Parts: sequence; structure tokens; C-alpha cells
Amino acid sequence: MKVVCIGSGNVATHLAKAIHEAGFTVSQIVSRTEENAKKLALSVNAEWTTSPDDIEEADIYIYSVSDSALCEIIRLNPHKEGLHVHTAGSMSLSLFADIKERGGVLYPLQTFSKGKAVDFKDIPLFIEASNANDLNILRELASAISNKVYEASSAQRQQLHLAAVFACNFTNHLFAIAESILHEADIPFEVLRPLIQETIDKTATLSPREGQTGPAVRKDFNVMNKHLDKLTDHPRWQEIYRLLSESIIDNH
Amino acid sequence: MKVVCIGSGNVATHLAKAIHEAGFTVSQIVSRTEENAKKLALSVNAEWTTSPDDIEEADIYIYSVSDSALCEIIRLNPHKEGLHVHTAGSMSLSLFADIKERGGVLYPLQTFSKGKAVDFKDIPLFIEASNANDLNILRELASAISNKVYEASSAQRQQLHLAAVFACNFTNHLFAIAESILHEADIPFEVLRPLIQETIDKTATLSPREGQTGPAVRKDFNVMNKHLDKLTDHPRWQEIYRLLSESIIDNH
Repeated sequence: MKVVCIGSGNVATHLAKAIHEAGFTVSQIVSRTEENAKKLALSVNAEWTTSPDDIEEADIYIYSVSDSALCEIIRLNPHKEGLHVHTAGSMSLSLFADIKERGGVLYPLQTFSKGKAVDFKDIPLFIEASNANDLNILRELASAISNKVYEASSAQRQQLHLAAVFACNFTNHLFAIAESILHEADIPFEVLRPLIQETIDKTATLSPREGQTGPAVRKDFNVMNKHLDKLTDHPRWQEIYRLLSESIIDNH
Repeated sequence: MKVVCIGSGNVATHLAKAIHEAGFTVSQIVSRTEENAKKLALSVNAEWTTSPDDIEEADIYIYSVSDSALCEIIRLNPHKEGLHVHTAGSMSLSLFADIKERGGVLYPLQTFSKGKAVDFKDIPLFIEASNANDLNILRELASAISNKVYEASSAQRQQLHLAAVFACNFTNHLFAIAESILHEADIPFEVLRPLIQETIDKTATLSPREGQTGPAVRKDFNVMNKHLDKLTDHPRWQEIYRLLSESIIDNH
């Protein structure tokens, strides 16, 4: 099975390496950025190009590019045949309709950062395809790189992507705020790690709703007002504090 | 060293057990709720009472009660002598002044839930005392139950408590929202766990600010608007989505 990987960002890089390490042939890397294309191609023993016209023929084309670039690059790929697969959480399978004959999705539910390796085996992969045969091909590819392969419709995947923004992107931003607050008191972020780890560990035995702790769920307005006072110099964080506390109170 | 523990909630329970297991004598549990007092007393081989008048003499009195009950129970404790210690993140050491001669703080930076055991050895304990001698006593006690003992002033501890609300209580609420969003698509919360774990693991090598991913940091308004549309039936979550996205954009 010959795979062409289109894109050279975080997702493309981690995915191309996982496919290569699973023993599949990554034949070509396609990227607008020559330097990135070369670098990734070297690490997976592939050819590379920056020109869509030079995309080679393959069994599978995997597009891991920004949502805004996705439709255009699919259109620019001269090959009609083969299985065309995107990796975007929020994009529908239907965007392949009328452009390619066979479309699919392989969505890795994970956050990828440059310079931080991840083990693909543990990453949930959500697959979808326009026909049963292609779903089998995707299942074979996905199962070779991860132990957690699920089928999901486009609608389900969009809910997943939305939930992931809350659970990962917004959570990480709360960590960034906490880090800034600690920094003002000369305390390293490090000391929060056991607390954060326990917050997650708890969700294995208690649902997040059941496991809620803190001043808001206790309706301890005395503590909440003290905290809001301490945030006077940070009106944005104060607004976040107020809104999330109200949401917790509403929810309990 | 004889320790009287006042309170029988989550913090009091976990702390009394840790002190007992470290080989100290928990001589008495004091709690307004007879059932809780009895249960905790039994598990740490202590006496118990529901009446502040019957508090026994001890070397250390540890108050783990709600912030609102704290001042009153300190006042009601008939013993002036001994070291009086509270465990509240947001309360100052100075609340002991004029009531007791020797005051201290032992703040465990952790989230405690009933029915979820925690290993005290890994919990950062922040100590403070009104004199050097009592600080040594607290350090001895704290070091016997945890490997992570730090000194912190009342002002530092209040910042810690505020940061912990962002990093734990608010984070957990985001998990609860994510769980509800997934529930609407018939997907179990479980699938988010590798993503959440990686979000935390990343903070060991990248600061939360550096490790930020997602549509907001990419200023991908197309995806953000799609997500906001999906939240039409949940105006509160929509408001949270908008505010946190704006805050991420501001911060990058």
C-alpha cells in the first residue's frame, strides 16, 4: 500500500512517521514549505515535492493540512483514483463528493506539538469512509498504527472535536492562567502537577460532574469574592472566573 | 505528639488517616456530625466528640472545616495552649491572632473526594507558622506524611489557592461540559482520556502557553464559528467557548 502524505505540520509529521514505522510505504511528502517537506521526507524515507502537479500516484492520499487549505489542495491533486483521506476533526466526509471518487476520514483525537513525541498506539483514531471497502482499508491502516480505532460519522466527529476543544485547548489555557497567577507569587507551575493529575485520575472512578470540588460547587461566595478581588488587575481572568463559577453553580 | 483533628469532611478524613499511618497519635476527632466523627475515629483509633467543650488537651489541633465554620470553632476550642493549625488555602495565618497563642497552617494542595483514595506522599504541603519553633514542628509532621513540603506565606498560599481553582476546579468543569457534549453524540468520555493526559504531560516539557493548540490559537474563525453554531442550544457553554477563545487569542 503506497501512501502519499500531504502536509508537513504537527499532525502530518507525527502521522507520516507512525505510518512509516508500521511498515507501510510513505512514497511522497507534499508541502508548500520546501524545508519542512524535505525534513519529513528524509525521516520517513520518501520523495518530496512542493508542487501539487507533481503529486505521485498512490493507493491512499492523506491530507493533514489546515482546514482552510484542505479543499483547495484536494482539488489541486491531479489524481482522481485512489482513496482520499483527511484528518480534520471538524470537516465533513462530504467535502470529497464531486471532487474524488473515494473519500475517507482518519481523525486522530490528540494534541500534537512540535518537539513533543507521542505514542500513536494510544491515540484514539476515528475513521469514516464513503463505502464499506474503503472503511476496511482505513481500518487496516489505522489498526496498524493505533490500538484504539473507532468508527464515527461526520456528525459524531464534529461533536468529538468540539468536546476536545473544551477538554484540551481550554483546559491548557486555564493551566496557562494558573501558571501566570503562580508566577506573580514566585511559585513554579510544577507544584500544581499532582493536583492536576488527580483531577484527571478521578474521572476514572467519578464522572467529572460528581467529582467537582472547589468554592463554586460549595457555593462559598466568601472565598469566590476574595478570589475575584485578587484578580482586579486581570479583568479577563476575572470574567473567566465569574463565568465558570456561575456555570458550576448552575450545574449543581 | 498528640494530635486532635477537628472536622470530618474530605480533607479531615484523608489528613487524619495520613497522620495516623505516619505513626502519630490522633487522640480525638471533633465533628458536628456524630456519624462522621465515629466513623473517622474508628479508622484512626481515636476518641470522638461532637461538642467543642469536650475537646481534649493536645500538642496540635488541626482544623479542617469549611472556611465559614473555621473562625467559630477555633474560638469555641477551650484550649489556649498547643499549636493551632488550619488547612485552608484561602485563610490567613493571622486569624489565630488574639484567639490562640500559637498558630500555623498546613495546606495540602490537592482535590479530595469521598471514595477516592489519594497518596499523601505526593501531595505538596505548604506550611506557615507564627514562630520558628512551631514551623519546625509543622515541618516534622508534614515531612512524615509527604515528600513535598514547602514554606509559603499567607499571600503566596492565597495565590496558590486561586491558581488551583483554575487548574483543578475549572478544568474539571470543562471536562464535565465535554462529557455532556460527547453524551449527545453517544460517545463515552473515556475516549478523551489520552488527549487529556497528553495535555498535562506536555506541560513537563513546554510551558502551557507554549503548548497551546486548537482553533483559537490558530485564529481559525471558520472552525470557531462552526463550534459556536453547534452550541446554540447551550448558551452558557457558548459564552464559555467565546470567552476562553478570546482569552487565548489575546494571549498569543
